[in-house]
Amino acid sequence: MPQPEAPSLPVRIARWSVFESRHAGPSAGNPFVDVDFRAVFRHGNRRIPVTGFYDGEGVYVLRFMPDATGEWSYETSSDARELDGLCGSFVCVDAEKGVHGPVRLGKKFHFAYEDGTIYRPFGTTAYAWTSQEAELEEKTLATLAASPFNKMRMCVFPKHYDYNANEPPLYAFEPLSDASAPAVWTASDGAGNKLSGTAAFRWDFSRLNPAFFRHLEKRVAELGELGIEADLILFHPYDRWGFSDMGREADERYLGYLVARLAAYRNVWWSMANEYDLMPWKSMNDWDNLFRFLQSRDPHDHLRSIHNCRPFYDHGKPWITHCSVQHNDVSLATDWRKLYGKPVVIDECRYEGNLPRRWGNITGQEMTNRFWEGFARGTYVGHGETFLSPDDVIWWAKGGSLRGESVARIVFLRKILEEGPPAGLDTASLGSNAHAVSGVDGNYFLVFYGMAQPAYQTLSLPEGSFEVDIIDVWNMTVTPAPGLYSGECRIELPGTVLMALRITRRG
Amino acid sequence: MPQPEAPSLPVRIARWSVFESRHAGPSAGNPFVDVDFRAVFRHGNRRIPVTGFYDGEGVYVLRFMPDATGEWSYETSSDARELDGLCGSFVCVDAEKGVHGPVRLGKKFHFAYEDGTIYRPFGTTAYAWTSQEAELEEKTLATLAASPFNKMRMCVFPKHYDYNANEPPLYAFEPLSDASAPAVWTASDGAGNKLSGTAAFRWDFSRLNPAFFRHLEKRVAELGELGIEADLILFHPYDRWGFSDMGREADERYLGYLVARLAAYRNVWWSMANEYDLMPWKSMNDWDNLFRFLQSRDPHDHLRSIHNCRPFYDHGKPWITHCSVQHNDVSLATDWRKLYGKPVVIDECRYEGNLPRRWGNITGQEMTNRFWEGFARGTYVGHGETFLSPDDVIWWAKGGSLRGESVARIVFLRKILEEGPPAGLDTASLGSNAHAVSGVDGNYFLVFYGMAQPAYQTLSLPEGSFEVDIIDVWNMTVTPAPGLYSGECRIELPGTVLMALRITRRG
Repeated sequence: MPQPEAPSLPVRIARWSVFESRHAGPSAGNPFVDVDFRAVFRHGNRRIPVTGFYDGEGVYVLRFMPDATGEWSYETSSDARELDGLCGSFVCVDAEKGVHGPVRLGKKFHFAYEDGTIYRPFGTTAYAWTSQEAELEEKTLATLAASPFNKMRMCVFPKHYDYNANEPPLYAFEPLSDASAPAVWTASDGAGNKLSGTAAFRWDFSRLNPAFFRHLEKRVAELGELGIEADLILFHPYDRWGFSDMGREADERYLGYLVARLAAYRNVWWSMANEYDLMPWKSMNDWDNLFRFLQSRDPHDHLRSIHNCRPFYDHGKPWITHCSVQHNDVSLATDWRKLYGKPVVIDECRYEGNLPRRWGNITGQEMTNRFWEGFARGTYVGHGETFLSPDDVIWWAKGGSLRGESVARIVFLRKILEEGPPAGLDTASLGSNAHAVSGVDGNYFLVFYGMAQPAYQTLSLPEGSFEVDIIDVWNMTVTPAPGLYSGECRIELPGTVLMALRITRRG
Repeated sequence: MPQPEAPSLPVRIARWSVFESRHAGPSAGNPFVDVDFRAVFRHGNRRIPVTGFYDGEGVYVLRFMPDATGEWSYETSSDARELDGLCGSFVCVDAEKGVHGPVRLGKKFHFAYEDGTIYRPFGTTAYAWTSQEAELEEKTLATLAASPFNKMRMCVFPKHYDYNANEPPLYAFEPLSDASAPAVWTASDGAGNKLSGTAAFRWDFSRLNPAFFRHLEKRVAELGELGIEADLILFHPYDRWGFSDMGREADERYLGYLVARLAAYRNVWWSMANEYDLMPWKSMNDWDNLFRFLQSRDPHDHLRSIHNCRPFYDHGKPWITHCSVQHNDVSLATDWRKLYGKPVVIDECRYEGNLPRRWGNITGQEMTNRFWEGFARGTYVGHGETFLSPDDVIWWAKGGSLRGESVARIVFLRKILEEGPPAGLDTASLGSNAHAVSGVDGNYFLVFYGMAQPAYQTLSLPEGSFEVDIIDVWNMTVTPAPGLYSGECRIELPGTVLMALRITRRG
């Protein structure tokens, strides 16, 4: 006969925070494979299926991010008797101050938090920042806290590449029990120097390493506290460990585990791959299947994208929420918006730095130019920094600190946009010149002239009267043009590069 | 009974200079249409048909450029009795000092004078410089004399466009006799200001104006004396007079007349059109027919090209000697070389200046960048300058003086090339990075890093030993890298933009 439960205060979870419940279960055999553990969460008539995960030491965990206030309950099911039919409940209360929910698609071509607040991605890239020593990771977080960035592109797996020869402290899988003698790897650091080392690269892909994921989710949560979206790259080709080529079964087991652990973090985005096209051993069908699997498993429907090196994935496919693009010519973003009908984020337009490779040696001025070019087209551009360093700590891969000249200009750009209407920018035209122009409802326009140095410009403004500010995007000054402007008009400009106009209706 | 001719010294003409003979003929009716006047020039067994032209006042003229020393003779034929069967001869002597003949196709992808001396086009553009007042035209010539330029893109007809509202002093045709009341035209100066004026734009296209052509050929000859090729643009769309749309018969009459007058000038190139695609009233078949006509008339087989605004003409067609291209992305020139198998001249890659239009407001730095990018790919880039001026005298259209920052750098580039082997540059590869690289026979290389700022580069040099000079193309310095280089090697660079390497075999 069941005992009456002692009355207790209900658990209170803030909206869009992580609810977690932990349950004892079997630890024999291989719990990652042998035990099925899931639950259904309920709120009113809503029923949301959620997959649990094994956290090691006989502990099974459910995580969930409630998106509505009020009472929630859940009930588990499992093929392990002690995990089956467990019930629980909690009360979801208002979101914490400053929490707006996960980022969703907003009005066409743009993003918004779930509460409707506009979200403009100002992203940066540090692919392997969570595969470094603690001190460096903490430094990266401190750098981000003082930066304009609100999105971080980051890989789940470690990175093997020029300037990235180090082993990570933790791995996502357990080594195969017969892999006691680590394999030897050799590689090049891109400067013509041969590197070699040892790596236990024969893994038991059926045994995940909870410590690895605990570390990853700690970093994701810390980004969340800084208001930074974690654009998590699930697969990438820069790999000496074999994580990019595990086979479909292991890929899905890994993805399912990752989703079960991380989907409850509101700041997670799923980037299926970095440079998917450099992994020819995965077919287009494989990528499609992985997206279908991911979409079916994620109870919180996070944003989904996939990043190219050269050919684009078909961003028109239904599971793609937005275009995550690598391309050198940011001005094409207008066409991609039209083509795919989705927000465009040029996450990689080359990096500010001084590496020998073309993708990693543009100037701060050029990075600034590309940011403005993309944003003034109503699209989004991502940052990265690649200055050589004697210790090989380069922001784009390992994080650390920033030394480029574009960051201050990105702060300024973000401020300019935040001073404007709280809406995404539509493409617009103010006359015949093919510069980057966008606006909001005919009341606000942003025009950018890039590396051109016109001495004046003629504009065709709508009816009414407008204030025009001349923005020097490099020197970060805003100078009002005298008087008000209307219809066909001429604006005198300083005849120097990197000029923008902000045009605001006043009548 | 014919009288014996008095013995006289034979006429002596330097090789590749203009031989001219003038003959009295009918002046009644319309001699431009009514009288057929031609000749055959002979040298040994060679027979070269040449068309004469009517120069007004009852004078008919033959012009010819002898390309071989020794005795030449000619005999005329005409449907006018007094012009038929006239004979003459002259002796062609060695070319004047510094004269190398007309420019021909040289080794693949390159140009050479007829005597084999390499010719590298360093072109500029002043479309309507011969349609200005004498003082301005003289100033243009003086500017050119002190410039690095050895090719001038120039229209036969005057230009109607922003900043180009003036009437030319001379017209190519006589006005129609009933056109006593000049027509009124209106246009915009591109700054939103309405312009208007009067122009006798109803022409008798069957009556050419010898004074107009005399003026044009004087300027062409003056360019020749400066060692400058006249890249003559035969048709263009910027027209309020109707010269761009005369119909096939008038087009051919004009072209035939122009060829009869000008083909004997060794420095003439034929550019069928500027921005042919902006004249949709001429079909592709029309352009092809004009080329066939031009080719059949020109006894001296001058270079032939046609310039686009957006879509390229098919430069693979047999009458096209080289690609004359407008494009913003100079790095594509490597592909065009391969595609068409002909020399590539990017005559318009945008202009240095401060106009409101994108094609006319790049910086001197960017023009310099584009010149090096094109030349270091074994192709050629053209210059133009578009700085606003209160009197609307802008180099790109009217000539005058130059004030940009790229000209000095083009002087420097020309010097660098002239210090290298007297041969055209082939595309080359010195390793994995996709920068502009070209070379000669594995003994000489030019590498350009554009707006990248690498701190070092790795190169894969051929066997042997090489000297490496680091060239700052903006500051115009040449700094030898210490020691000699061979095979896989690393070059330290200053980590700033606009750097080139000159690599010369020393062993």
